[in-house]
Amino acid sequence: MMSSWLLPENLSDVLPAEARRIEELRRELLDLYRTYGFELVAPPMVEYLDSLMPANDEALRLRTCKLVDQLSGLTMGVRADMTIQVSRIDAHLLNREGVTRLCYCGPVVHARAAGLMADRELLQIGAEIFGHAGVQADIESIRLALESVRRAGVRQPRLDLNHPGVGRALVDADPALAEAGDAVFDLLSAKDAPGLEALCAECGARADSLAALRTLTTLYGGLPVLDRARECLPALPALRAALDDLRTLCAALPDAPIALDLADMGGGYGYHSGVMFAIYAAGWHDALVRGGRYDGIGRKFGRARPATGFSLDLRKLSAGLPDAQPIQAIRAPWSDDPALTDAIRALRAQGRVVIQALPGESQRPDEFFVDQELAATGDGWALRPLDGAA
Amino acid sequence: MMSSWLLPENLSDVLPAEARRIEELRRELLDLYRTYGFELVAPPMVEYLDSLMPANDEALRLRTCKLVDQLSGLTMGVRADMTIQVSRIDAHLLNREGVTRLCYCGPVVHARAAGLMADRELLQIGAEIFGHAGVQADIESIRLALESVRRAGVRQPRLDLNHPGVGRALVDADPALAEAGDAVFDLLSAKDAPGLEALCAECGARADSLAALRTLTTLYGGLPVLDRARECLPALPALRAALDDLRTLCAALPDAPIALDLADMGGGYGYHSGVMFAIYAAGWHDALVRGGRYDGIGRKFGRARPATGFSLDLRKLSAGLPDAQPIQAIRAPWSDDPALTDAIRALRAQGRVVIQALPGESQRPDEFFVDQELAATGDGWALRPLDGAA
Repeated sequence: MMSSWLLPENLSDVLPAEARRIEELRRELLDLYRTYGFELVAPPMVEYLDSLMPANDEALRLRTCKLVDQLSGLTMGVRADMTIQVSRIDAHLLNREGVTRLCYCGPVVHARAAGLMADRELLQIGAEIFGHAGVQADIESIRLALESVRRAGVRQPRLDLNHPGVGRALVDADPALAEAGDAVFDLLSAKDAPGLEALCAECGARADSLAALRTLTTLYGGLPVLDRARECLPALPALRAALDDLRTLCAALPDAPIALDLADMGGGYGYHSGVMFAIYAAGWHDALVRGGRYDGIGRKFGRARPATGFSLDLRKLSAGLPDAQPIQAIRAPWSDDPALTDAIRALRAQGRVVIQALPGESQRPDEFFVDQELAATGDGWALRPLDGAA
Repeated sequence: MMSSWLLPENLSDVLPAEARRIEELRRELLDLYRTYGFELVAPPMVEYLDSLMPANDEALRLRTCKLVDQLSGLTMGVRADMTIQVSRIDAHLLNREGVTRLCYCGPVVHARAAGLMADRELLQIGAEIFGHAGVQADIESIRLALESVRRAGVRQPRLDLNHPGVGRALVDADPALAEAGDAVFDLLSAKDAPGLEALCAECGARADSLAALRTLTTLYGGLPVLDRARECLPALPALRAALDDLRTLCAALPDAPIALDLADMGGGYGYHSGVMFAIYAAGWHDALVRGGRYDGIGRKFGRARPATGFSLDLRKLSAGLPDAQPIQAIRAPWSDDPALTDAIRALRAQGRVVIQALPGESQRPDEFFVDQELAATGDGWALRPLDGAA
């Protein structure tokens, strides 16, 4: 029998000072999204498994905890990601024709941690724009993602950009590769040139297709990559459109270092269809924010609207910031004196923390440091500094 | 095959205007608890089933969704109540000797809805005081609970008070009733005088025990009930102490109508050991807030500290309030003009909502009403009213 105070692996409690900082980040970011016109929604923690993931997303399926709905006998899942829930809300509950901006914040649970260092519970916050296929929506989304991490105090965030449309255009241009698309994408993302060579030989792909794919695996780095791509890759319309989108984006985002990786085809959630991005910063071993365009996501709900957005884990964000600092508090004695009650009420109404000591109380809170007390004067109660502040 | 946009019964999405109001209530109440010195904690959504409930709490066990932990093979539960998680944090993570005040807010999920009208997902918020056995902690807790609903805009809340110590003292005073305690408590709560008569006959209880239990079933109503109880019930020390606590409490809570029910022994979560309370108001068919003393709750974690507190469901609270109102927003065109970017940034920094229309965008948000726009003047950008505001 194990001790009932042990938590399962990769799950943890968030303790006072840290919990308060996470709450502050939550507010800061939700308020930021509101000033951009994003409307807040809250999908349920559990719903039918099938609704919680796009078709064929094996990784998300494995990451989702399953349970049986006692009312229907059907399998439900505890959400492991809220993006698709929000696209369901756009598609069916709101069902608007125009642009809809939605934001959300809530816990998600992973059956298996996404990495060695990863928690199985995240506090996911995100913002999504539905109903606009233009690169302007991507610009708004990425600007907002960068502003999110800056507001949180992250220094010198770096932006990684890619666009699966480049590689997809190359595959679509050669009928011999049609069946092997996913395998090509995996090899591209891994920059596996010998693998591409073998696969192309096997499929009977054209020599110029292989040459273009091999070139693509070398196209990563700063902005000059876009010029090299334009020179070296075939002038396919879809490929040119993808490069133009990336160029427009980079021009509209002047205030962060940008790294491009044109061979990165995404993966993971597998529903990305346009510009994709991630934000990194010193202090976090993995991406802080991931986002991009995933126009097909609403298809399973019968309404495949254009969609672009991002999300991040507030717990991970907070964990990489400098230690949360306790805030000032005031101690007051227990007493029925109405003058004391009034004095306490007035201080609390200003947002000051007043801890009224219960008879015999001693305490050492983590979230507060107590350095003042309300003390009786001749004719009332006044604040005075506390010696040896707790 | 069911439609993938259908949600399981008694689960729902929270849509924009409502979600924003719930978020505001969350902030208002967590900030209120902070001004009283409550520290925020966040236990996990899932943990081992055994840690999520006191021993023998059959109702909570049935209400908890189970799933298998892929890492340990053990059964986990999705939390259906956070109170015991918070007592675990007090007992083991903080492990302080003195008084600890903790607050929390997060989703909980019920396998079965608690009632016909009830949702299976709640947003539970609550505050608990650990380490103080005196009635003063109960006073602080109940004052804070009343202030919570008043801050939310609930009019004329009513407070129900009871104290299982009264009935327990009567049972403890008669050895013949020792084995039948739970049955007596159920009959008392149901005010079932004939049932008590039959049970006492069966157990061989004393005649004065039965008489006192019968009297107890009549002791409900306003404050005079306390005087009647003192006159009519035996002068047992534990019984007198419970009545004294209730008297002290009532004197310290002058600003709400109070209803006492001395035969109510609680039930449900089953770990209450002292003063218990509930807050009702017109517009909600069930209690808005439930709370009380449950000193034994930490025992399973090896540290049975005194504890008193309360919790409520923010979604239920919000649902009974007048409809949430949309807030004002400003429309701006899409443009690269730095003067426009500056104007938008300045307005957003003041907390104003500025929706920058993407090319071709039309929209009709629920959470906002757009009644102004940023328009180009000769030498910059200015706010002007919008005709036929969206």
